[in-house]
Amino acid sequence: MNMKVLILPGDGIGPEIVAQAKKVLEVLKNDGLALELQEAPLGGAAYDQYGAPYPEFTQKLAREADAILLGAVGGPQYDKLDRPLRPERGLLAIRKDLNLFANLRPAILYPELANASTLKPEVVSGLDILIVRELTGDIYFGQPRGIRVNEAGEREGFNTMLYAESEIRRIGHVAFQAAQKRGKKLCSVDKANVLETTEFWKEIMTDLAKEYPDVELSHMLVDNAAMQLVKAPKQFDVVVTGNIFGDILSDEASMLTGSIGMLPSASLDANNKGLYEPSHGSAPDIAGKDIANPLATILSVAMMLRYTFNNEAAAQRVENAVKSVLAQGLRTADIYEAGTTKVTCSAMGDAVVAAL
Amino acid sequence: MNMKVLILPGDGIGPEIVAQAKKVLEVLKNDGLALELQEAPLGGAAYDQYGAPYPEFTQKLAREADAILLGAVGGPQYDKLDRPLRPERGLLAIRKDLNLFANLRPAILYPELANASTLKPEVVSGLDILIVRELTGDIYFGQPRGIRVNEAGEREGFNTMLYAESEIRRIGHVAFQAAQKRGKKLCSVDKANVLETTEFWKEIMTDLAKEYPDVELSHMLVDNAAMQLVKAPKQFDVVVTGNIFGDILSDEASMLTGSIGMLPSASLDANNKGLYEPSHGSAPDIAGKDIANPLATILSVAMMLRYTFNNEAAAQRVENAVKSVLAQGLRTADIYEAGTTKVTCSAMGDAVVAAL
Ligand SMILES: CC(C)[C@H](C(=O)O)[C@@H](O)C(=O)O
Ligand SMILES: CC(C)[C@H](C(=O)O)[C@@H](O)C(=O)O
Repeated sequence: MNMKVLILPGDGIGPEIVAQAKKVLEVLKNDGLALELQEAPLGGAAYDQYGAPYPEFTQKLAREADAILLGAVGGPQYDKLDRPLRPERGLLAIRKDLNLFANLRPAILYPELANASTLKPEVVSGLDILIVRELTGDIYFGQPRGIRVNEAGEREGFNTMLYAESEIRRIGHVAFQAAQKRGKKLCSVDKANVLETTEFWKEIMTDLAKEYPDVELSHMLVDNAAMQLVKAPKQFDVVVTGNIFGDILSDEASMLTGSIGMLPSASLDANNKGLYEPSHGSAPDIAGKDIANPLATILSVAMMLRYTFNNEAAAQRVENAVKSVLAQGLRTADIYEAGTTKVTCSAMGDAVVAAL
Repeated sequence: MNMKVLILPGDGIGPEIVAQAKKVLEVLKNDGLALELQEAPLGGAAYDQYGAPYPEFTQKLAREADAILLGAVGGPQYDKLDRPLRPERGLLAIRKDLNLFANLRPAILYPELANASTLKPEVVSGLDILIVRELTGDIYFGQPRGIRVNEAGEREGFNTMLYAESEIRRIGHVAFQAAQKRGKKLCSVDKANVLETTEFWKEIMTDLAKEYPDVELSHMLVDNAAMQLVKAPKQFDVVVTGNIFGDILSDEASMLTGSIGMLPSASLDANNKGLYEPSHGSAPDIAGKDIANPLATILSVAMMLRYTFNNEAAAQRVENAVKSVLAQGLRTADIYEAGTTKVTCSAMGDAVVAAL
């Protein structure tokens, strides 16, 4: 039976980076991987075509798919739209609709790109962190929320941070199991000294640790984690945290590498169905110029092969092809430095295909 | 009339660093500044003495004081206490009780300490950011909150993020006015694409900007801000944000300097009554060893002179004394490097007094 992969090019540089990843998928298909590729719009592109950022057309295909590859969503032309119509609403909607609660965001420094980091080489060389961010709960989705007039007749904005025990447990299991496959260290990030939600989070993580005696669990306050990522990022192996803290810390961690154009991500449901996308955004300023870096999207395909298709060999084949183009000295503009060869987005895609 | 300064040594290294700052205050007093110094416990020390982290004894003196100098609170011996008795509850309580809504946290890189940063010199040299963090609202104090059993019979933790218009306006005014006195650039940090509370925050900041045509207001999403602080921190002049985002970003920004032992902070009410404290914590591991860095606490005295006593000359006198001991090559252990002279906490305090 064919595995169904839905491709969502999205907005900005989305279509051009996804086109390179598609070339990689086509190679794998020709080499015998049972894939069926489909395509649909998400975000601004979906609004343009269907009047909604996550239209029924896309939803139907997304629900049927085994895995989804997304470029990126968003662009300035959509900023004035009503909130429910904005591109990022499409992203939040598909995450929630498909129950993609486990967001895995690696922050890896490629040795060839060590100079790209704003941190000193000795602080970041060999950096390899995995951030496990809960993606369908927390203040992102908590009710009640809104802007209202309070009893004193004054306007106020409000949101609800909320985690049920089962939500914490399931992301905890994902994180402990990820740590088992890596350095066996898990750091759970909370603000337990102030927020009951995360005091509860910490309690559940502590309880879960009993089931994973081979993993060393530690706890860190979110403000301290933001500091420690700058001070000594290599102290971390796997980090697990809630949706909003994960949003902030995973972006901070990505930027430590200086080459966010290289970082993929996976968002998984309980059965390893996943949405895969680069960690960077839609970069509208460089869209259509064929200069974006497609490697994060191509590495997202590798994550798809690993997590959804359980095909470690194919995943490593793609990752090795990326390492090989880096070793050849090929660089898109974002990671270019003197002494290397600057290539376009599509040329980089072709080079990866050749290296496969 | 004498200005009343209440000293709260607190826990851990608090007493020893505050003792050095007290020497500075005594010099200023001998030189004619009309000061009256009092002392009270806060945090764990207050729990030990009065059974509460912000006891009535301390509250009475704090309410009467014009300014407060705090060392730091917290220590492992208090970790098992019930939540309302823990040291940090004392800190939250005094902030709320005295309406200290405006937390000013400078992140400044001293040229002599440039090596201490984990970031490359060209990225951080000359760094001078002021983070203005709202301190008495947001999810820190929002109701309802707690841990409960939900309708499905499952336990859940929950908190409320909340900002009323007047709370946003008053911190906005502080931030715009701070920007007017500096580089005239203000960046307001929110998560307006997801959280209504911060969508409202952004709306009010935008409205306030009309009153400050000389200040250039920009908006940034919190995840992007966490990245930009690592990527290009010098793009920022003044940053204004809510309590929880400010907690995270101000710690991240402090750590960019690598010398958090140098960074003071001020928490002000509407009349510039203020609580002044170092940005670092109580460091229980090195408490009582006379090796802590007292300079952040001494620089907190300078902020007190500037903001509460409106005495710019005295503030600069203290700041210049600190610069002078750095120029002399004196360093406590946390900022020591080869070629400089390592001194104890008390010796550093004496050196500042001598430089005054
Ligand atoms: C676009 C936005 C809603 C989204 C988020 O906050 O989750 C993005 O920042 C991300 O991290 O994927
Ligand atoms: C100790 C804690 C409650 C406090 C806070 O979160 O505000 C601290 O982190 C700070 O920033 O002063």
